[in-house]
Amino acid sequence: MDPSSPIGLASNLLSRPVKRLLRALPKKPGAAPGTLVYTGPERSEPVIVRLLEYDRDVLDERTLSHQADFHELAENARLTWLNVDGLNDLDLIQAMGSAFELHPLVMEDLVHTGQRPKFEEYDEYLFVVLRMLTLNAGGLSVRSEQVGIIIGDGHVLSFQERAGDVWEAVRERIRGASGRIRSRGADYLAYALIDAIVDHYFHILEAFAEQVESLEEEVLGSPTQETMHRIHNLRQEMFVVRRAVWPLRELANSLVRTESSLIDSGTGVYLRDVYDHTVQVMDSAETMREVVSGLMDLYLSSVSNRMNEVMKVLTIMASIFIPLTFLAGIYGMNFEVMPELGIPWAYPTLLGLMGAVAIGLLLFFRKRGWL
Amino acid sequence: MDPSSPIGLASNLLSRPVKRLLRALPKKPGAAPGTLVYTGPERSEPVIVRLLEYDRDVLDERTLSHQADFHELAENARLTWLNVDGLNDLDLIQAMGSAFELHPLVMEDLVHTGQRPKFEEYDEYLFVVLRMLTLNAGGLSVRSEQVGIIIGDGHVLSFQERAGDVWEAVRERIRGASGRIRSRGADYLAYALIDAIVDHYFHILEAFAEQVESLEEEVLGSPTQETMHRIHNLRQEMFVVRRAVWPLRELANSLVRTESSLIDSGTGVYLRDVYDHTVQVMDSAETMREVVSGLMDLYLSSVSNRMNEVMKVLTIMASIFIPLTFLAGIYGMNFEVMPELGIPWAYPTLLGLMGAVAIGLLLFFRKRGWL
Amino acid sequence: MDPSSPIGLASNLLSRPVKRLLRALPKKPGAAPGTLVYTGPERSEPVIVRLLEYDRDVLDERTLSHQADFHELAENARLTWLNVDGLNDLDLIQAMGSAFELHPLVMEDLVHTGQRPKFEEYDEYLFVVLRMLTLNAGGLSVRSEQVGIIIGDGHVLSFQERAGDVWEAVRERIRGASGRIRSRGADYLAYALIDAIVDHYFHILEAFAEQVESLEEEVLGSPTQETMHRIHNLRQEMFVVRRAVWPLRELANSLVRTESSLIDSGTGVYLRDVYDHTVQVMDSAETMREVVSGLMDLYLSSVSNRMNEVMKVLTIMASIFIPLTFLAGIYGMNFEVMPELGIPWAYPTLLGLMGAVAIGLLLFFRKRGWL
Amino acid sequence: MDPSSPIGLASNLLSRPVKRLLRALPKKPGAAPGTLVYTGPERSEPVIVRLLEYDRDVLDERTLSHQADFHELAENARLTWLNVDGLNDLDLIQAMGSAFELHPLVMEDLVHTGQRPKFEEYDEYLFVVLRMLTLNAGGLSVRSEQVGIIIGDGHVLSFQERAGDVWEAVRERIRGASGRIRSRGADYLAYALIDAIVDHYFHILEAFAEQVESLEEEVLGSPTQETMHRIHNLRQEMFVVRRAVWPLRELANSLVRTESSLIDSGTGVYLRDVYDHTVQVMDSAETMREVVSGLMDLYLSSVSNRMNEVMKVLTIMASIFIPLTFLAGIYGMNFEVMPELGIPWAYPTLLGLMGAVAIGLLLFFRKRGWL
Amino acid sequence: MDPSSPIGLASNLLSRPVKRLLRALPKKPGAAPGTLVYTGPERSEPVIVRLLEYDRDVLDERTLSHQADFHELAENARLTWLNVDGLNDLDLIQAMGSAFELHPLVMEDLVHTGQRPKFEEYDEYLFVVLRMLTLNAGGLSVRSEQVGIIIGDGHVLSFQERAGDVWEAVRERIRGASGRIRSRGADYLAYALIDAIVDHYFHILEAFAEQVESLEEEVLGSPTQETMHRIHNLRQEMFVVRRAVWPLRELANSLVRTESSLIDSGTGVYLRDVYDHTVQVMDSAETMREVVSGLMDLYLSSVSNRMNEVMKVLTIMASIFIPLTFLAGIYGMNFEVMPELGIPWAYPTLLGLMGAVAIGLLLFFRKRGWL
Repeated sequence: MDPSSPIGLASNLLSRPVKRLLRALPKKPGAAPGTLVYTGPERSEPVIVRLLEYDRDVLDERTLSHQADFHELAENARLTWLNVDGLNDLDLIQAMGSAFELHPLVMEDLVHTGQRPKFEEYDEYLFVVLRMLTLNAGGLSVRSEQVGIIIGDGHVLSFQERAGDVWEAVRERIRGASGRIRSRGADYLAYALIDAIVDHYFHILEAFAEQVESLEEEVLGSPTQETMHRIHNLRQEMFVVRRAVWPLRELANSLVRTESSLIDSGTGVYLRDVYDHTVQVMDSAETMREVVSGLMDLYLSSVSNRMNEVMKVLTIMASIFIPLTFLAGIYGMNFEVMPELGIPWAYPTLLGLMGAVAIGLLLFFRKRGWL
Repeated sequence: MDPSSPIGLASNLLSRPVKRLLRALPKKPGAAPGTLVYTGPERSEPVIVRLLEYDRDVLDERTLSHQADFHELAENARLTWLNVDGLNDLDLIQAMGSAFELHPLVMEDLVHTGQRPKFEEYDEYLFVVLRMLTLNAGGLSVRSEQVGIIIGDGHVLSFQERAGDVWEAVRERIRGASGRIRSRGADYLAYALIDAIVDHYFHILEAFAEQVESLEEEVLGSPTQETMHRIHNLRQEMFVVRRAVWPLRELANSLVRTESSLIDSGTGVYLRDVYDHTVQVMDSAETMREVVSGLMDLYLSSVSNRMNEVMKVLTIMASIFIPLTFLAGIYGMNFEVMPELGIPWAYPTLLGLMGAVAIGLLLFFRKRGWL
Repeated sequence: MDPSSPIGLASNLLSRPVKRLLRALPKKPGAAPGTLVYTGPERSEPVIVRLLEYDRDVLDERTLSHQADFHELAENARLTWLNVDGLNDLDLIQAMGSAFELHPLVMEDLVHTGQRPKFEEYDEYLFVVLRMLTLNAGGLSVRSEQVGIIIGDGHVLSFQERAGDVWEAVRERIRGASGRIRSRGADYLAYALIDAIVDHYFHILEAFAEQVESLEEEVLGSPTQETMHRIHNLRQEMFVVRRAVWPLRELANSLVRTESSLIDSGTGVYLRDVYDHTVQVMDSAETMREVVSGLMDLYLSSVSNRMNEVMKVLTIMASIFIPLTFLAGIYGMNFEVMPELGIPWAYPTLLGLMGAVAIGLLLFFRKRGWL
Repeated sequence: MDPSSPIGLASNLLSRPVKRLLRALPKKPGAAPGTLVYTGPERSEPVIVRLLEYDRDVLDERTLSHQADFHELAENARLTWLNVDGLNDLDLIQAMGSAFELHPLVMEDLVHTGQRPKFEEYDEYLFVVLRMLTLNAGGLSVRSEQVGIIIGDGHVLSFQERAGDVWEAVRERIRGASGRIRSRGADYLAYALIDAIVDHYFHILEAFAEQVESLEEEVLGSPTQETMHRIHNLRQEMFVVRRAVWPLRELANSLVRTESSLIDSGTGVYLRDVYDHTVQVMDSAETMREVVSGLMDLYLSSVSNRMNEVMKVLTIMASIFIPLTFLAGIYGMNFEVMPELGIPWAYPTLLGLMGAVAIGLLLFFRKRGWL
Repeated sequence: MDPSSPIGLASNLLSRPVKRLLRALPKKPGAAPGTLVYTGPERSEPVIVRLLEYDRDVLDERTLSHQADFHELAENARLTWLNVDGLNDLDLIQAMGSAFELHPLVMEDLVHTGQRPKFEEYDEYLFVVLRMLTLNAGGLSVRSEQVGIIIGDGHVLSFQERAGDVWEAVRERIRGASGRIRSRGADYLAYALIDAIVDHYFHILEAFAEQVESLEEEVLGSPTQETMHRIHNLRQEMFVVRRAVWPLRELANSLVRTESSLIDSGTGVYLRDVYDHTVQVMDSAETMREVVSGLMDLYLSSVSNRMNEVMKVLTIMASIFIPLTFLAGIYGMNFEVMPELGIPWAYPTLLGLMGAVAIGLLLFFRKRGWL
C-alpha cells in the first residue's frame, strides 16, 4: 500500500500523451495553402515506395527509388497501386503530386497527419483520408495512423505514416492470380483497402472487450485506485477509436452516393457493405463506451460500500468498548469514600454488567443489520 | 458478511461475457468479400433444414437432407419456406445461395453472426437481418441470435443460429388450413416471421420489468452491494436488447417504404403495424433504461444515508463517553495532593455531574435531529 | 428512526408496479394479426355503450344494448357519437368493427391497451390512439388509460378502458343547443375530445408541481431517506406522463397536416391549437423533469453536508478529550518513582495545562471554520 | 451553525413557486375553444389602454376609455398602436377582438397567460406571443410576463399582463419626429417592440452573470449549504429564462421566412437581426447553464474535500493518543506483581517510549501527505 | 495546509470574469437599430487604420489618418485591404460605412463586440463575424476578440478590437511579390484571413492539451483542491473556445455554399478546406471536453479513495487499542476484592492476552484486505 505507487503505475499506463489525441496542428497559421509541412512524429527510417502493377494476367511488384519517373507510371495502362510508407520526404510527395496532378490542398492534407477522416471528390480523382488503428505492444493502447488514398483512373495511391499495415491479405489476394480483385479496377482495389482498415477496427474492439472483462472482474472482486486508472485509460483509448470511427459513417455514405465516374456501378454493393460495417463499428464502440461508464459507476459504488464497511467496524468497536472503558474508569478513581469498592461481590457484578452492556449493543447493531 | 461472496455471486450473475455484446468479428481483415466464415459459437449439433411448402389447398412439411436439390425448390410454383437451424455448414449455405442466386455478400452476412439488423433490397429478393431474443434459463439474461430472412418471389429462406425459435405459432397458422396466411404470398409470410420476433421482445421486456420491480423492493428495503451488481447486470442486458431493437426502426421503416414489387400493396398496412410495434418496443426499452438509472441513484443515496446513520451512532457514543472517561481519568490520578479525593460527597457529586454532561449532550443531539 | 420503516412507506408510495409503465404486451407472438385479445387489467363491470346523436336541432342521448344494430347507426344521417366504456367485450368490438368497416388491425389496437399514441389514416376513417391521464386518489400517482377514437364520415367512435372520463364538459356543450359544436361535423367533435384530453394534462402537471413544491420545502428543511423515495416516485410518475405526451406531438402534427377529406379546412386552426397545447405540455413536463433532477442534486448535497456536520462534532469531541484523557492516564500510573506526584502544586498545574490544551484546540478548530 | 437557518434563508430565496414555472393552465378542459378565461395572477389595478397614432408628420398619444370606438380605430389611416396593460378585462378584449376581427382562439391565447412564445399567420394579421422578462426587486429572480402582439394592416395591438415594460425607448423614438420609425409601417413598429424585448434578455443574463461570479467566489472561498441553495435557485431562474427564450428561435425564424404581405421586404433585414440576437441569447443562456453546473460540481468536490480534512484531523489525533493512553493504562493497573513499577528509571523510559511512538506516527502521517 | 490558500490561488486562476463569457450586451433595448454603441472594454490606445493596396505588380502599404478619403479608396482599381485596430472611434466606422455603403445594422454589429460568429450576404458585399482567440500571458486563459470582415468587390475591410493579430504571415505572403495571393481577388484574401484565424485555434487547443496533461499527472499523483480549481478553470476556458468555434461550422458551410458573385468558383476548394479545419477544431475541442470530464471523475474517485485510506487507518488504530485500553482499565479498578490482582502470573498473562487480541484483530483486518 505504498501511496506513491499509483503514479508509477499510472505513468506506465498513461504513457501516451493527450496531445496524441489532438495532434492536428496544421501549417503555420497564415501560411499559404498547399504549403507542405510534415506534422507527424519525427522518424529516421527511410521512406519506402512500393509499386504493385497488375492486370488480369500480369503482376509486377517492386520497390521504387525516390527518383522514379512517376509521370510514366501515371500513364500506365495496367492498374497501378503505389503505396508510400512514411510521409516525411516532402520532395517525393511533391513529385508524385505533380505526376498525378494532385491539388496542392490534397498534398497538404496527405502530410498533415492529424486529419479527420474525410472524402473529397475532384474531377480526376477521389481523395479519401482515414485512420488505420493498430494495437501497441501490450495491447493496452492504440496507435492511430493517418492513411491517405487517392483513387484515380487506373491507379491507386496510398500514403501511410509508417511501414506495417493491415493490407497484407489484400496483397496476397492480388498475388494469387485467380482473385476477383485482379479483374477489377482501381475503385475495387480502393474498396479492398478501406474494407481491410474498417474490418481491423473490430479486432481493436475485441482487444478492448477483453480488457473490459478483466476490469469487470477486478471491479467486482477487489478494486483499487489502480482499477480506476485502468478504466480511465481505457476510456481515453476509446476516444482515439471514436475519433477514427465517427467521421467514417459520413465518409462511407458519401462513397456510396458519389456519382463520380471513377466508381463502377458494380462496386456500389461492396461500398454499401463497408458502410454497414462502419455503422456496426460505431455501434459496438458506443456500447463499449456505455459498458465502461457502467464499470465506473460500479467502481464508485464499490468504494462507497467499502467505506461503509470500514465505518461499521469502527463504530461497532468504539461503541462497545468506549462505554465499558468509562465504567472501568469510574472504579479506577481514588476517592476516599466510594462504598462500592468495599463490597465483595461488586467486582463480579460490574463484570456482569459490562457483559450485559456489550451484548445489548451487539443486539442493537444486529437489529440494524450491521452485523 | 463474507467479503468474498460478491465475487462468487457476481461471477454467477455476470457469466455472460462482454464480448457477447460485441461479437461482430468479420472475416479476416483484407480477405476477399463474400468469403464465408462462420463466426458464431462452436456447435456440434447437426444443421437442420426444414421445408414448408404450401398453397391455399396443399401443405407439405418435411426435413431436407443437405444434398437436396435446392435448384428445383427455387422453381417451385407453391410458396416455399426453407428454414435453416445452424449456420456452420458452409457448403449447405453455398448450395442454397447458388440455387437462389444470392449475392456473395449476402451469404457472408448470413453466417457472420454479429450483424446489426438491416434491410437490403436486391433486384430478385429482399434481405432482412434481425436478432431473435430469448431468455436464458433463470430469466436473468438474454440470448441474442442472428436471424437472416430472404424474401424472394415465391419463397422465403430463413437462417437461424440454433434450433428453437419463436415461430411455432406461425407454423400452426400455416398448418391450420383456413388462415389468411395460406392464401397470401412470400411477403406476408415474411411479415408474420418478423412480427413474431418483434412481439417476442415484449416478453423479454416484461421479464426485465419483473426484475426491476424486485430490485426496486430490494433497494427500498435493505440494499447490499449485491443489489448494485444486479442493477449493473440488468443494465448490461438492456444493452443487448437495445442493440437488437434500435436498428429495427430504420429497418421497419425501409420495409414500409420499399417500392419493391416483391411486397404486395395489401401487406403494407401489416408492415406499418410492425413499425408501430418496433417504436413501442424502443419506447419501452428507453423507459426501462431510465427506471434502472433511477434505481441506481436510489441505491447510491441509500448507501450515503446508511453511512450517515452509522456515523451518527459512532458520534453519539464517542461524544458522550469520551468526555466522561476523561473525568473519571482525572480522579484516577495519583497526585498526593488532590483535595477533592478526601471530600465524602465528592464521589456522588461527580457521578451527578457526569449524568448532567451525558444528558446535556443527548439534548444537544436531539436538537440537531440526530436522535 | 426505525430502519424498517422505509419499506412500509415505500410500498405505500410505490404501490403501482413498474409493469404498468410497460404494459404493452401484444397478442401471443406469432398469432394472426387482427386477433382480438384484451390486454388491460381484469374488470367485472359491464361494458357500456353510450350514444349521442345530434344535429343543429335535435339531440338524442341513450345507452345502447350490446345487440344494438350498429349497421343502422353507421348509416345515420345525423352526427353519431358512440362511446364505449370498457374494452373486454370482444364480441361487441367485433360487431361495431364490422358495422363501421374497421380494419382488423385497428380493432386489435383498440383492445391492446398498451398502445403508444398514434394517428393512422384509412380511406374511410381516421384512427387516433391517445392516453387519458387522471390522478389516482391521493393525487400522488397517475392513471393512464388508453383511448381510441375513430373519426368517420358522420360518426365518431370512442373507446375507453373504464367508465369515467374528462369529456363531461364536451357533452354539456352538445346538450346546450346553441354551441358551435352542434353545427359542425365529426372532425370538430373529435377535435373537442382530443382537446379535452390534452388540456387535462395541465391539471396533472399542476398536481405534480404542488408535489414538487412540497418536496422542495422538505429538501431545504430536514430531508430524510423518505424524501428521496418521494422524489424517486415522482420521477417515475413523470415517466408515465412523458410516455403519454411525447408521441402526441407527432400525432397532432399529422392531424394538422392530413389531407384527408374527413377533416374540414375550418377545423385546421383548432387542430393547430391542439398542437400548440401539446408542445406546451411537453415543454412543461420537460421543465418539471429538470426541476426534479435539481431536487435530487440538492438532496444529495444536503446528505453530504449533514454527514460533514456529524463528522465535525465527532472530530471536535474526540480531538479535545482523547489527549486530555491521555494526560490523566499518565498520572494514574503506579510507578513508584514519579516525582511529580509529590509536588503539591502539580495537580492544579496539570488541570491548568489541560484547560490550555482544550482552549488551544478549540481555537484551532475555530480558525478552520469548524465551529 | 443553527441547523434551522437554511430553511429561513431558503424560503426567502425560493419565494417564487415552482408553479410559476408551469403556469399554463388553459381553459377548463372540454370548454368550447375561444372561451375567454384570464389565467394570470389576480390584480386590482385598472386595465389601461394607450393609443399612439402617428404618421410622418402627426403624432397623437392618449389613454383610451374602455368604451372607445375600436371599430373607428381599426379604419384609421394613420399607423395605430394600441397597448393594453392588464388582461383581466375580458369585455374590453372582446370589444377589441371584434373591432379588429381577431379569431376566437387568438383572443383565448391573449388572456391565457401561460402561452409558449409562438408565431401564427392569419390572413388579415400576424399574431406573436412572447415573454417579457424583468428582474424582480433584489435582482435574484425574474418576472416573466406574457406579451401578445397583433400585427395588422396599419395597426399594432400589444397586450401585456401588467403596466411597466421595456418599450419606453421605442415610444421616445416615435415621439422624436425624425426617427426612421415614423416613416415606416406596422411591421417595423412590431419589429421594434420585439427587438426591445429580446435585447432586454441580455440585461437579465448580465444580472445572472454577476450572481454567478459572486457564487463562484463563494464556492472557491468557504461554501456553505446556503451556497448550494443559491446555486439551485439560480438554476431554477435559468429555467424561466430558457422557457422564454428557447421557442423564440423558431418564432424569429418564421418571422424572417413569412411571405405575408404584412411584412415589407425592407423589414426583412431587421427581422434577421432579431433572429441573430435570439440565437445569441440562447447561446449565452446555454453557456450560463453549463457554468452553473460546473459550480455545482465544484461545490460538491469542495464538500468532499473538507470532509477529508475533518477526517484527517480526527484520524491523526485518535491514532496518536489512543495507543499512548493504552500504554498509560497498562501501568495504571493494580497487579501486585508488576516488576517494572519498582524500577526507578522505568517512568522516564516509558515517557521516552511514548514520545517515540508519537513521533513515529507523525512521521508516518507526514509520509502519507496528511500533514 | 492553510485553509485560506485556495481563495488566493483561485482568484489568481479565475481572474477572468464570467461576464467575459457573456459580453454581448447590445444597444440600449429599444434604441433604433443601427445605433452605433461600442461595447468592448475601455481602451485608450489610438485606433489605427492600415491600408494594403496591391495587384500582381504593385504593393502599397501605409497607415491612414482618420480623415482619409475612404470614398476614393472604395473606387480603387487595385485590391484594397483596410484593417482597423480598435473599434471605439465611432466616427471613423461611420465614415468607412458610408464610403463602402454598409448597412446600418452591419456597422452596429461591427462595434458590438459580443457578436456570435455569423455570415451575412448583402448584394454588394459579404459580412463575416468571427472570433480571434489568443492566449493570455501565462497561457492559462484565452482572449477572445471579435473580428468583422467585409468582403466587397475589390476590397476587404477587417475590424479588430485591438492591435496585434494572427495575420502577420498573410501580410508577409502579400509582401513577397510571387505568392498566389497577389494574383487573386478579395475573396481569396478574405479566405486567407479566415484560414489564419481558424488555424490558430489549433495552437490554443495545443496549449490546453499541455495543461490537460499536467493536470492528469497531478490527478494521478497527489491531487489537491487546487487541482480541482484548475480543472474547473480549464473547463471554463473551453467554454470560451466552444462559443467561438461552434457557430463557425455553419458559417463555413454558408461560405462554401454561397452563390454570391463575390466568391470566385476557384476559391471554393479553399473554403471547403476551411470548413474541414473547422470541423476538426470542433472535434478536437469536443474530445478535450470529454477528457477534462474524465479528469474530474478521476479526481473525485481519488478523493474518495484517499478518504477511504484515512478511515482505514483510524479504524485499525482505534479498533486495536480501544479494547486493549478497556482491559487495562479493568485491572486499574480499585475494588478491594479482585482476586486476579494477587496472582503473580496474572500480569504477564494479561499482557499475553492483549497481544493475542491485537494479533487477532490484525489478522482480521488483513483478511479484509485493509492491510
